[in-house]
Amino acid sequence: MKFETLRDAGLLGAMSAEGRELVLPQGIFYWSGRAKQEAEINATIGSAQGKSSEFLEGGGDDVRTFYLPSVVKHLKALDPEKIAPYAPICGLPRYRVAWREWIIRKLSPFYKFDSALIGQPIVSPGVTSGLAYVARLFASPGDTIVCHDRRWENYDLVLSDMLGLKIRAARLFNEAGSGLDVDSFVDAVRETAKTQDVVAILNFPNNPTGYMPTVDEGLALQKALLKVADESGKKLILVFDDAYDGFVYEKNAAQISLFGHFIGAHPNILPVKCDGASKEFLFYGARVGSVTFAYHPSWGEPAKLSAEFDNKVGALIRGTISNSNLAFQHAVAAAIESGVECDSERARVISVLAERYSIIKSAMASNLPESAVADPFNSGFFCFINLNPPAEDFADKLLKNRKLGVIPLSDSSTGFNGIRVAFCSVEAKDIPETIDRIVAELDK
Amino acid sequence: MKFETLRDAGLLGAMSAEGRELVLPQGIFYWSGRAKQEAEINATIGSAQGKSSEFLEGGGDDVRTFYLPSVVKHLKALDPEKIAPYAPICGLPRYRVAWREWIIRKLSPFYKFDSALIGQPIVSPGVTSGLAYVARLFASPGDTIVCHDRRWENYDLVLSDMLGLKIRAARLFNEAGSGLDVDSFVDAVRETAKTQDVVAILNFPNNPTGYMPTVDEGLALQKALLKVADESGKKLILVFDDAYDGFVYEKNAAQISLFGHFIGAHPNILPVKCDGASKEFLFYGARVGSVTFAYHPSWGEPAKLSAEFDNKVGALIRGTISNSNLAFQHAVAAAIESGVECDSERARVISVLAERYSIIKSAMASNLPESAVADPFNSGFFCFINLNPPAEDFADKLLKNRKLGVIPLSDSSTGFNGIRVAFCSVEAKDIPETIDRIVAELDK
Repeated sequence: MKFETLRDAGLLGAMSAEGRELVLPQGIFYWSGRAKQEAEINATIGSAQGKSSEFLEGGGDDVRTFYLPSVVKHLKALDPEKIAPYAPICGLPRYRVAWREWIIRKLSPFYKFDSALIGQPIVSPGVTSGLAYVARLFASPGDTIVCHDRRWENYDLVLSDMLGLKIRAARLFNEAGSGLDVDSFVDAVRETAKTQDVVAILNFPNNPTGYMPTVDEGLALQKALLKVADESGKKLILVFDDAYDGFVYEKNAAQISLFGHFIGAHPNILPVKCDGASKEFLFYGARVGSVTFAYHPSWGEPAKLSAEFDNKVGALIRGTISNSNLAFQHAVAAAIESGVECDSERARVISVLAERYSIIKSAMASNLPESAVADPFNSGFFCFINLNPPAEDFADKLLKNRKLGVIPLSDSSTGFNGIRVAFCSVEAKDIPETIDRIVAELDK
Repeated sequence: MKFETLRDAGLLGAMSAEGRELVLPQGIFYWSGRAKQEAEINATIGSAQGKSSEFLEGGGDDVRTFYLPSVVKHLKALDPEKIAPYAPICGLPRYRVAWREWIIRKLSPFYKFDSALIGQPIVSPGVTSGLAYVARLFASPGDTIVCHDRRWENYDLVLSDMLGLKIRAARLFNEAGSGLDVDSFVDAVRETAKTQDVVAILNFPNNPTGYMPTVDEGLALQKALLKVADESGKKLILVFDDAYDGFVYEKNAAQISLFGHFIGAHPNILPVKCDGASKEFLFYGARVGSVTFAYHPSWGEPAKLSAEFDNKVGALIRGTISNSNLAFQHAVAAAIESGVECDSERARVISVLAERYSIIKSAMASNLPESAVADPFNSGFFCFINLNPPAEDFADKLLKNRKLGVIPLSDSSTGFNGIRVAFCSVEAKDIPETIDRIVAELDK
């Protein structure tokens, strides 16, 4: 977009220095918009979808965004006094208690930690805002922030464009393409720690690759980062972008966020969990996410730390959006409190996605030609296929010639080039055909 | 708050330059928190409250936050497909159409304008975020922004602390205290326009004073600002903070936002309407607000301008919070579409507030001593009483000695010192007693 009308009207010139430069990248929206119009099979959509019979008792053939009936039920049962008023700046106390219990419940089977060291979740509108607030709290314009080469494309807008941070991109996968490149990330953190305290983001299950570290990789990462924390003497702010927490389909993968490895683990490490109802409770439109800090015992009383973090993050919230939606905090809290009902609904959706995962995994393994290399994946909503032909051209051809919609992603600085396939929104019966069409277009 | 625990843990030092300085002011929350505990009459709460019999058919003596039954009904009737998915970044198209119609419907009886010049509202989570996005789009750190001395206290956090802007505060009232000081605001805009394009905020009905300009004052302001636009050659970005739009209780006051005076009025004036469902639809916790630009015919096609503004503001939205709550956009849109039902519910609430307004106005007129001067008021949720004794001391005494909660506000740089009385949340029967207690404490 060139903003010629605003420019000619003299309005572009009246904007702030930042305002003049702002551009909303059209990539994902362009491709998902075209797919809606042109595709028979649409693998662009980043939310779980399918026939209602797949996730609802008594459902039918109508195609829907998956949701959790109990959460919707709780929303609709709310007294207006739980809908109309403002929520407190840092979140509804009921929600903060429930979400903290939810985090502890998820982590407990897989990690040893002292739950007293987990702070009160601070509520903000979605995981995006939580990440943005944490980055703003810990990194000044011009600072370097560490994340992966394969990352949610919006990181660049949130971190670089909005906050003026430099992204140092570690390789997500090792050169053999067999799994996590632990060293690349740790090296990036170590290198950055030579000159500053470090904010580093770990997004697992990863968007766009659908990768969750194995249990062993998680342990190796923990060990190596503890060593950097020891040796560098700098603070490491480890930000866990856990938007897809729990959508894991292989037994050798870590089942829940690596956040669990870092709770109270080192006085130089501040683990921060950014997560939310958007994916975990299939409540994308709710805009309920949160930021949860974990403390080291040497830092003082957790209650005092939480109060001080509430004030700091609360200032960012109050100074940008005032507070978050109240009703959806009540609805999600009620679902968490209800326990079994909601758990079984979530399990059903996860099992649908796990089945799609298995089908696409085996279809890719048996059919993809050597020129198209799938990244390792075992979790999340997506998988990623590396390509030789320019990704955008290929996605265009897939749409035109095969009526298949995918999201092309590329980054000339890292050589990253390929397509993201959202198996979360393609029904199992269409998945083999999805891969067949990709293969057919590659073979042409 | 001194952040001693974060400091001793080394975490304060690990924060960004901005993060180290951040403080969420406790003022309003401190006083409303104390009032909840200590007050018999609580006039601190900034949302309309009262017995349900005051606003509900078949209501009783239970005290509630006022709401519009039809909006809640529409929310609860939503199909999950209108709850679970993401809303588009700039808002649900249905909502954008409905809110634009709502703006036009409100303005039409009072202003002459070409509705084709009103852009598509851009949705963001509440009026706060809309103001913050507009200020960020048009003002760079270090720039001056014009607003009034009597202003919502959060402006200082949003504009100064978050965006690094300098606030130039015009006097809201003339020296006689009889009405709007048109000259002070216009002078501030003119002075600022000597060195930069100007962003200026007009918040009417005003928080904390409950003042809406008279029709004549509105015309005088329009005329004077058009003259500045002519003579300065700078762009004037006139931002209308219309959070309380339509809550007007006197016939000689402008009934709806002065935004109506500036639509297409001058090629150097960009009017921007920031408003939302929070107060207008008594849906505080919904977090649905919007930003609406109005264009000059010489600027080119409104559709192109809207598309370009969508991209600019969309970048800010996507880069900070991704998108806004979906379900509440549907619910408010449905209420607007339904027309009469919702209008009559709103009228009922406004008439309850108008009655409280009349009672407090006459109680103050007959009882306040000369040492306590009420600011002019005719609208909104609050009124403001100027005091000689330090406002915080007085509010503390009111709580301790009279069990009455109010919000003290003061600003040593402008000499502003007094108490905000929220008649929106005090039942009519308690209002004379509210004033009596203030008078008794003043007389002591």
